[in-house]
Amino acid sequence: MTDAADLAARVREGDLRLHELDDHADADTAAEARRLFVERETGATLDAVGDYGFPAERAESNIENMLGTVQVPVGVAGPVDVNGGAASGTTYLPLATTEGALLASVNRGCSVLSSAGGANARVLKSGMTRAPVFRVADVVEAEALVSWVRDNVAELIEAAESTTSHGELLDVTPYVVGNSVYLRFRYDTKDAMGMNMATIATEAACDVVESETGADLVALSGNLCTDKKPAAINAVEGRGRSVTADVTIPREIVEERLHTTPEAIAELNTRKNLVGSAKAGSLGFNAHVANVVAAMFLATGQDEAQVVEGANAITTAEARDGVSESPDSEARRTSSGGDLYLSVSLASLEVGTVGGGTKLPTQAEGLDVLGVRGGGDPAGSNADALAEYIAVGTLAGELSLLSALASRHLSSAHAELGR
Amino acid sequence: MTDAADLAARVREGDLRLHELDDHADADTAAEARRLFVERETGATLDAVGDYGFPAERAESNIENMLGTVQVPVGVAGPVDVNGGAASGTTYLPLATTEGALLASVNRGCSVLSSAGGANARVLKSGMTRAPVFRVADVVEAEALVSWVRDNVAELIEAAESTTSHGELLDVTPYVVGNSVYLRFRYDTKDAMGMNMATIATEAACDVVESETGADLVALSGNLCTDKKPAAINAVEGRGRSVTADVTIPREIVEERLHTTPEAIAELNTRKNLVGSAKAGSLGFNAHVANVVAAMFLATGQDEAQVVEGANAITTAEARDGVSESPDSEARRTSSGGDLYLSVSLASLEVGTVGGGTKLPTQAEGLDVLGVRGGGDPAGSNADALAEYIAVGTLAGELSLLSALASRHLSSAHAELGR
Amino acid sequence: MTDAADLAARVREGDLRLHELDDHADADTAAEARRLFVERETGATLDAVGDYGFPAERAESNIENMLGTVQVPVGVAGPVDVNGGAASGTTYLPLATTEGALLASVNRGCSVLSSAGGANARVLKSGMTRAPVFRVADVVEAEALVSWVRDNVAELIEAAESTTSHGELLDVTPYVVGNSVYLRFRYDTKDAMGMNMATIATEAACDVVESETGADLVALSGNLCTDKKPAAINAVEGRGRSVTADVTIPREIVEERLHTTPEAIAELNTRKNLVGSAKAGSLGFNAHVANVVAAMFLATGQDEAQVVEGANAITTAEARDGVSESPDSEARRTSSGGDLYLSVSLASLEVGTVGGGTKLPTQAEGLDVLGVRGGGDPAGSNADALAEYIAVGTLAGELSLLSALASRHLSSAHAELGR
Amino acid sequence: MTDAADLAARVREGDLRLHELDDHADADTAAEARRLFVERETGATLDAVGDYGFPAERAESNIENMLGTVQVPVGVAGPVDVNGGAASGTTYLPLATTEGALLASVNRGCSVLSSAGGANARVLKSGMTRAPVFRVADVVEAEALVSWVRDNVAELIEAAESTTSHGELLDVTPYVVGNSVYLRFRYDTKDAMGMNMATIATEAACDVVESETGADLVALSGNLCTDKKPAAINAVEGRGRSVTADVTIPREIVEERLHTTPEAIAELNTRKNLVGSAKAGSLGFNAHVANVVAAMFLATGQDEAQVVEGANAITTAEARDGVSESPDSEARRTSSGGDLYLSVSLASLEVGTVGGGTKLPTQAEGLDVLGVRGGGDPAGSNADALAEYIAVGTLAGELSLLSALASRHLSSAHAELGR
Repeated sequence: MTDAADLAARVREGDLRLHELDDHADADTAAEARRLFVERETGATLDAVGDYGFPAERAESNIENMLGTVQVPVGVAGPVDVNGGAASGTTYLPLATTEGALLASVNRGCSVLSSAGGANARVLKSGMTRAPVFRVADVVEAEALVSWVRDNVAELIEAAESTTSHGELLDVTPYVVGNSVYLRFRYDTKDAMGMNMATIATEAACDVVESETGADLVALSGNLCTDKKPAAINAVEGRGRSVTADVTIPREIVEERLHTTPEAIAELNTRKNLVGSAKAGSLGFNAHVANVVAAMFLATGQDEAQVVEGANAITTAEARDGVSESPDSEARRTSSGGDLYLSVSLASLEVGTVGGGTKLPTQAEGLDVLGVRGGGDPAGSNADALAEYIAVGTLAGELSLLSALASRHLSSAHAELGR
Repeated sequence: MTDAADLAARVREGDLRLHELDDHADADTAAEARRLFVERETGATLDAVGDYGFPAERAESNIENMLGTVQVPVGVAGPVDVNGGAASGTTYLPLATTEGALLASVNRGCSVLSSAGGANARVLKSGMTRAPVFRVADVVEAEALVSWVRDNVAELIEAAESTTSHGELLDVTPYVVGNSVYLRFRYDTKDAMGMNMATIATEAACDVVESETGADLVALSGNLCTDKKPAAINAVEGRGRSVTADVTIPREIVEERLHTTPEAIAELNTRKNLVGSAKAGSLGFNAHVANVVAAMFLATGQDEAQVVEGANAITTAEARDGVSESPDSEARRTSSGGDLYLSVSLASLEVGTVGGGTKLPTQAEGLDVLGVRGGGDPAGSNADALAEYIAVGTLAGELSLLSALASRHLSSAHAELGR
Repeated sequence: MTDAADLAARVREGDLRLHELDDHADADTAAEARRLFVERETGATLDAVGDYGFPAERAESNIENMLGTVQVPVGVAGPVDVNGGAASGTTYLPLATTEGALLASVNRGCSVLSSAGGANARVLKSGMTRAPVFRVADVVEAEALVSWVRDNVAELIEAAESTTSHGELLDVTPYVVGNSVYLRFRYDTKDAMGMNMATIATEAACDVVESETGADLVALSGNLCTDKKPAAINAVEGRGRSVTADVTIPREIVEERLHTTPEAIAELNTRKNLVGSAKAGSLGFNAHVANVVAAMFLATGQDEAQVVEGANAITTAEARDGVSESPDSEARRTSSGGDLYLSVSLASLEVGTVGGGTKLPTQAEGLDVLGVRGGGDPAGSNADALAEYIAVGTLAGELSLLSALASRHLSSAHAELGR
Repeated sequence: MTDAADLAARVREGDLRLHELDDHADADTAAEARRLFVERETGATLDAVGDYGFPAERAESNIENMLGTVQVPVGVAGPVDVNGGAASGTTYLPLATTEGALLASVNRGCSVLSSAGGANARVLKSGMTRAPVFRVADVVEAEALVSWVRDNVAELIEAAESTTSHGELLDVTPYVVGNSVYLRFRYDTKDAMGMNMATIATEAACDVVESETGADLVALSGNLCTDKKPAAINAVEGRGRSVTADVTIPREIVEERLHTTPEAIAELNTRKNLVGSAKAGSLGFNAHVANVVAAMFLATGQDEAQVVEGANAITTAEARDGVSESPDSEARRTSSGGDLYLSVSLASLEVGTVGGGTKLPTQAEGLDVLGVRGGGDPAGSNADALAEYIAVGTLAGELSLLSALASRHLSSAHAELGR
């Protein structure tokens, strides 16, 4: 009997629990024992899950009760030319997905973006948030707490920053609902996505609040952060990186490469992404930004649950004037033959290039493809660049899907008319 | 020079494109060639990505430009007892994640759920939607189109169902904004997540609409579906499976196992998940449902971008009366010593056990752990069961995190008081 | 000492309460007594409030503790030509407001609408809702309750309709969150706004639910109605009347009368009403629809608090092709010189022409101006017409404000350029 | 023929337009002429509308095309004891409404509030906003504009404040979506509601932005203000006054006066106002706050269309521990017999005591009843006090309706049980 089989038997007999196996064997043997146990309990075979490509101990800070790995196909789209604030040059975008045609679609978009001279990208706001909730007696105490916070930001900064060598507390914004007071702490967490850093720093600041005021901490997160839930506060004020990518594509390229027109794409974007999303009561005014965010998150070791906030994105499209030198705006607007301007603005893209899943072997390679693995110089620049690359990926994805929808309609219209 | 090296060189020389490699070699060689090419272009090494565990051709319907795979650690939580509509018995929940402590947290929750006799779970509504947008001349034509649709549902059903052997068109709901008319088609897609099935069926129905009326199809998706965007229409009306899991946990278990009280959890849930989310303008009134949805989606081959809609969930908690035999509701409410009732209701969980990523080797094994791989008997029952298992996983996750937050506060409060 | 003075003295002495005055005097004397009392208590003079123009008893079902009236200036905009489903012909729109320039703005819009041949208007959906919330034990009981409701709609209709001679219960939609079950009852309330009718009818239906199932009614309104709160459920599914008004305005009229272009208005509408509202996390994608709704509600005796739902409106604007005979959509789109299409779609406009404030003298006169006082023939047609007239009023208001904003920019741009 | 009849005839003959009448007669004669004209055109009689109580010229800055007034019944609720930041003492609340039972309900609530020692109220944040939208070329220019704004706030303040003797520009927050840049200007407008002041000041600041940067102003309002639309940005960040009122009501009073229990109200509030509103996708988590806001707005000359933002309110209710001296929070929570804590937090209540409708005779008297007419000392204190009084009114309204719903249920439950 192998060690693993023996351990599995002990679990079956109630002698050990699954999560205790790491105390009795190395990580790989423990994982094997779990597979044996689960296979017998459930009738499943776990050969593929067990065929993973790195020592299990490398994942010990990423998971408990490990069985092995799930393997998700990964590919590249590109090259694409990027004119970013932190990112620049020609790059390939890694995407991991199981949705056929997604990668091909982004690839087509990248090709058109490059033909148009590349995409712009800029991180316009940055900050990771954590918002604890305190209980006070009533609104009189709430007002006093809010005043105290405003007067003692320096003390809160000192407490918060004592817990981290990298992070900086940028500001603290209070929100009051009855006798609940929410303090939204916002941090510069540099190249880390920063949720853990923000949580630990905020806990230290909360200790100060509790000891200096009468407020009781109810929870370190009071949901105004807002982490991993769709929330307007993120869509409006941002969380993580607020990043926009855009491009102006000459009319000829739209017509020849995408088989549609700037006007058709603009109309489609209005009826679908703007008016349709408005009617749906949505916080996401885009076609399929989450597809690219999810795929690039997987390929680069980001937190998949934060795809939720990543979907808070607005896509805009317009047919631009073709006579841009004219200063007469009325004339410009009515001229025909314009180019296509397309943009995607992601309000709350939470990314990091250090920590979390970024250290796992395949994910680290994904970051290497983009040249953004580890801490940047200056600090934060790698995570900024990653945000910009993802934004460009979403721009490519929107361009491709919108033009496919628009051209399909045109072609069927043409077919119907016998042309 | 190997075949792969030769092909990579041809790509470098501009003789071939990355996506054309599949025409010149088998899938594994093409992937190797891409890795060689990308490594040279970017300076990255792709050994880990290239160390995948199945023939690349098995992923050909899942991705293009494949390099290899991303490996995400997967583990199991449980066992947990489930009293579901489709799911039942004792099971282990597979979760793939890179966020340390998540699996341990769900595991702790599962243990408490089982101690309390297990969790209930029910799919309460089901249907995959696709909502094309049509352009008409004005509201007079919009009214006529809406009338036409209401009068010709049978014809639309016939067209839609002609494209599928499994799916059923359940209903068509029109929404009008100016001269844009959105028709939300809702389907029973059985064990498939159903987005593709719904799209193809809807396209056929749209052909009927266009040929029978003056309406022009602008896009097959007009964003009232709503796919992969946070949207109230999904949170209110549901999409995919609307599923609830709940449990009543005896007070003693809450106190002894979770080191807190039903009242503390109920208060925390109100201030954080209800009031905090309300103030944040959120569609997600929960603590971290998306974590579990993302991890179980990854482990079972679901579409990661649909974690977005999966986060549309409401968690409720209440301290129940301990004297449940009393018919006097006033007396019941004021009695002390109640139990904890906890629920999670996911409005729009989009899952399938056939198609998409479910056929990949590691993902199929994840479904096997749950016993829900492939088509169910009756059709749809496997996807229902998967939805219920995920709902139970989120219940375990909420229970664990809420009690951790509540007990941390209690313990620090106690420490502060010298006890 | 007058009767009123005597009564006021008795209130001061604690012998009577303000609301008991109606038991001791006629309504006008009671109102006078209250004014005397309040004047003395607060130092205010209430001469203007007391100078009201009808017997106080006519308002006895509208208010308690009446002092007199508030007088709000009322005027008319128009005439405007309306091509409605229920409304038709040339009409004047009464608006009561204290915001200078509003009426002039709507008036200008009406004039342009008429020059363009008038506005279309259609009620596309109709139904007043009330959604009680029930408590059940758990999701197993919730599922049973939902099934019971689906199987017993006829019984619920019978109970609900037994309370009303006019109303019809159209459907009942269940929503489940944990152990709370919400049933959204939707009624055709004909010419009544219908909130009271719906409440009474729903109460009767709830009695049936409680007696036939184990569910406990917690509240007759569980906020999924949703009455007088901004809520996506109304914006998506409608409440009261869902009504759209639109118009196509020839380019020449836009240029000559409004001093701007269709393209400028379309761009402005996109950046402000669509993208701006999207970024704001709004349910209202319009410029100032609420202004017109509030003013026409006041003038016609509607419930002012329902202006909240009235603001759930989407305005769309587009520059239409000028060569509409061409079947080639690509050519059409690129042609210059198009006309302006403008629409306003109000999702949840709650109006009535009988009951509530509609019977008060000045308000009844407001309805007379529109020719929609009292019950319509067929029943419901007067309230439909009122909804259409209000929608046309909002269209006029949007047109006027959008073109003012667009032309101001153009003129200042021109001034800047020395022309 | 009277002057008015003559003028009406000239309008009929097309010789004059309705809005030109003010140039040919005094305001009252012009109004009479309009009534005569409209009566003949529509068949309505306008005697009641014409029976208004002040010289029409007093309303000339409030309306155009005036016919007369709409009379809305007004009454008082109270007295109620208020412990506010700006408001204090015992007061009567004026409400104008046509909804029977509303005033009685608020009155009952006021009585209970006073019995409990009065309500607290505090304005926690204040500022009127206006958010113009600018067009730039692309995100590169957007970034430059945002930087410019951050570096030149002093210049913007100088320009903005040059237009007003009272207002102060507090801050400017930029939001970027593609090539649209929204700048949200926030002002302290003292006792004015401040929309006009903010608009004029912002226009001056926009001139500076346009002359100093390449940005083009598209509209002075880009809908991130957000005025008169339901929008999360207001619910989250506030607009006008963010004000909370709360109270702790001894258990005995709840039981004896309201015939229910703190626990029943807390449960009801959770299921209806929190969970129900959550499921509805709402921004209003309350029972009927808009009713009181609308009625007090009408009675005091506020802008009725801003009832929309006034409805962005959260009501919380909890059954408090009865042994408040115990430091052991666990013990406190499980003790029975607690008191009721109830709060209403209005995020965006836009009020003023000068300008707009506040100068009209009946409305000014309404302000006098509250003692807040005209400018306060210090400036802004009257509008703060008005906000606090309205908040207390909504608290009274919530208390009354919630307890009515809760007690109705209890009584019917008791009836059912034969007690």
